[in-house]
Amino acid sequence: MDAQLNAYFKQVDSSATAFIDRLRTAVAIPSISAEDQRRPDVFRMGEWLGEQLKALGAQVELRPMGKQPPKNEVDLPPVVLARYGNDKKKRTVLVYGHYDVQPAEKSDGWATDPFKLTVDDKGRMFGRGATDDKGPVLGWLNAIDAHQRAGVEMPVNMLMCFEGMEESGSEGLDDLIMAEAKKFFADADAVCISDNYWLGTEKPCLTYGLRGVNYYSIEVSGPAADLHSGVFGGTVQEPMTDLTRLLGSLVDTNGKIQIPGISEQVAPVTADEEALYDAISFSMDDIYQAMGSKTTIYDDKKQTLMARWRYPSLSVHGIEGAFSGAGGKTVIPAKVVGKFSIRTVPDMDIEKTNNCVYMYVQEQFAKLKSKNSMNVFAQHSGKWWKASPKHWNFSAAAKATERVWGVEPDFTREGGSIPVTLTFEEATGKNVLLLPMGSSTDGAHSINEKLDKRNYIEGTKLLGAYLHYFAVEPQT
Amino acid sequence: MDAQLNAYFKQVDSSATAFIDRLRTAVAIPSISAEDQRRPDVFRMGEWLGEQLKALGAQVELRPMGKQPPKNEVDLPPVVLARYGNDKKKRTVLVYGHYDVQPAEKSDGWATDPFKLTVDDKGRMFGRGATDDKGPVLGWLNAIDAHQRAGVEMPVNMLMCFEGMEESGSEGLDDLIMAEAKKFFADADAVCISDNYWLGTEKPCLTYGLRGVNYYSIEVSGPAADLHSGVFGGTVQEPMTDLTRLLGSLVDTNGKIQIPGISEQVAPVTADEEALYDAISFSMDDIYQAMGSKTTIYDDKKQTLMARWRYPSLSVHGIEGAFSGAGGKTVIPAKVVGKFSIRTVPDMDIEKTNNCVYMYVQEQFAKLKSKNSMNVFAQHSGKWWKASPKHWNFSAAAKATERVWGVEPDFTREGGSIPVTLTFEEATGKNVLLLPMGSSTDGAHSINEKLDKRNYIEGTKLLGAYLHYFAVEPQT
Repeated sequence: MDAQLNAYFKQVDSSATAFIDRLRTAVAIPSISAEDQRRPDVFRMGEWLGEQLKALGAQVELRPMGKQPPKNEVDLPPVVLARYGNDKKKRTVLVYGHYDVQPAEKSDGWATDPFKLTVDDKGRMFGRGATDDKGPVLGWLNAIDAHQRAGVEMPVNMLMCFEGMEESGSEGLDDLIMAEAKKFFADADAVCISDNYWLGTEKPCLTYGLRGVNYYSIEVSGPAADLHSGVFGGTVQEPMTDLTRLLGSLVDTNGKIQIPGISEQVAPVTADEEALYDAISFSMDDIYQAMGSKTTIYDDKKQTLMARWRYPSLSVHGIEGAFSGAGGKTVIPAKVVGKFSIRTVPDMDIEKTNNCVYMYVQEQFAKLKSKNSMNVFAQHSGKWWKASPKHWNFSAAAKATERVWGVEPDFTREGGSIPVTLTFEEATGKNVLLLPMGSSTDGAHSINEKLDKRNYIEGTKLLGAYLHYFAVEPQT
Repeated sequence: MDAQLNAYFKQVDSSATAFIDRLRTAVAIPSISAEDQRRPDVFRMGEWLGEQLKALGAQVELRPMGKQPPKNEVDLPPVVLARYGNDKKKRTVLVYGHYDVQPAEKSDGWATDPFKLTVDDKGRMFGRGATDDKGPVLGWLNAIDAHQRAGVEMPVNMLMCFEGMEESGSEGLDDLIMAEAKKFFADADAVCISDNYWLGTEKPCLTYGLRGVNYYSIEVSGPAADLHSGVFGGTVQEPMTDLTRLLGSLVDTNGKIQIPGISEQVAPVTADEEALYDAISFSMDDIYQAMGSKTTIYDDKKQTLMARWRYPSLSVHGIEGAFSGAGGKTVIPAKVVGKFSIRTVPDMDIEKTNNCVYMYVQEQFAKLKSKNSMNVFAQHSGKWWKASPKHWNFSAAAKATERVWGVEPDFTREGGSIPVTLTFEEATGKNVLLLPMGSSTDGAHSINEKLDKRNYIEGTKLLGAYLHYFAVEPQT
């Protein structure tokens, strides 16, 4: 394997300019899934990707996804399904990525044209989608390309699933994954998703867990319409009074959730997990810089990482129906809806958590002895995900990382959710690995999104190397 | 006086059709002060009003008010200053009204064209500005008109002040009133404002008090920008957590203000005041109907009226900077501004009240031991107003009411604010009377605003009769 990898790595370095050109072409297609008028560009991007894969010799299908609900006015972009290699003697990896991007306008504050890949003297390649997720998607194509040019046989069969609606709710994707689990995806031995980021800027990581999220609404209503606070103030039980009291009872300044039955569900910290944190490349300065302030709950790294990854949190997001503008308005809102969410972790159960929330909020409301009506309900829920970082899929990626980057990767979790992860795990029953290419400063979803040239080129090496270790790693 | 009033009343009845036509013409001019593109219509309305007054023989000045701050892009409409009669042997009344109107579009839900006066078979005259405040303003013109046609001498000199920016903050008016107090307004013996409404639909009232309003902001900020609740939830002290706790500490469901030092400033109920409430034509059904619900704090009329008129109230209006849309957004807002206001009453002091609020909110915030920054401040303040209902100006209006409507008026206060009332009182040092024409169901500021034909015609009689009693009432 050593000689093959060396030849492959050398080829990636030789092809670096061509690979950057490939990314430049992709970034130039403004495939913004959130904007209906850009939908033809999303289609163009999917078709370009399909052509690139065909040119590499893959079997490609652009799966039509129908109309976009709920209006059914525009077509959903296709899911690009591709197979490269069909050798029954080889293992098969299923990779996922997305070819749509977040909105971007130069006027948002970009230093450069967001749809023109611009490389600065530090090797930062600026452009919308550079890191999220066109760079990683093209990393897989580059890996195939460099194997072919170097005359190195691909060690695995690859199944690819690249969608065009990730930034807009992955409309229809879950159904497709479920439907193809025992068909197109049937051969997959494990899954790899490259759509997240290093914890910092210097050390690679493998991600084995994500928090889930239960999103709640508390509706409080009384009068039939908004009232003037001069005429009615002091005579009416105001829904906002009740709602602020309810929202204020959910969590304290230090993040302690006041709802009984939540923390009781959290899995205890094992010795194995405990041992992971100290080595992780992360410092409080990283979070201070990311927040632009020092208003953290904890002052130490380990507690902060555990709070982000393995403990639940509750955030109050806002209120619908109240006055939200600048200045002053003397309104008594008639119906207000408070929004909050709980990030969930192993072993929390969605239903059990919902019931704890409903019971607590109802109890708090009963204490107010209000004549207003109150309703608390979950808008949507997504389960947490946690894989075993000791699975052979992770071992393969860890060895590849050490080979390419010269360091053992950190094993990390994330505080947010990537729902497709859980869908792939549940649909295929196989291990899912999150293998990031970009770093924490890439600014996915922000202005001046970038991918470092280093991360793109070494990342392409990493994806290819991962396939070689994937092919031979003893199955656990 | 009796014969004169009879002749005047007869003439008003004879001229009813012409007076309704006068209102129709005024309603047809969409003098919406809040919409810049309608500003020419506001000017047109002021000019039409000036011409009408001139045609009646008044001396008229359309006082230019300069540019509208803060942008200074459009001209402020003129204040129409008019004098009718200059007989040193007669008393002089100063009347105020406004000729601008609230915005209105048919598509807002109006049953008829808002700028076409439409009279239904119940005598309801629908149209924007019909009751607020074109009907009352034209009532004064009708009164002069009918006196002339009936050959009845006007018993007083009239000074008129009709503005075109009342619905948009009365820009510049305070300065004009102060500047003209000892000049154009110097002769005024008392002031009469017809720009409010009966408490119900059947019984006339005279209004002798208004609550003031202190409007507050509580800003809480921490991170430099909004954060993703997945990535940062549980690790950062969230400004929304602190703000909901602060807002939830201000007032309880039954309207009890939790801030020390507020209720202590409220003037005690006197025996005279106490005696007023029972007779007042108002029932809990009136407020239930107005609110469209039964979610009142009190179940009896007297407590409800006192809560509206003579006790302070605190309303939480909303939050700026948080998520306020429909659906769900997983944001940790970086800076949020809670808005609330306190309606103030005699003998509350603005500064003292502000200091109580600041101290309380700071104490509550200190208890949170938060690293976030908090700032509480008053956006704006307007003092309460309370006149003596035993002043001869009120006695004159009471006698006129009994003469026209056949009942003693209720003496009422209002929960809201009409800032110009206090300005006139302070600038002229004279008694100010609020003499409403329309009723509680007129829907000023709402769709389907109307003025009942009965209230317009009998109201015109009332304004004229008031002038006769005003002329002779023994000064108290």
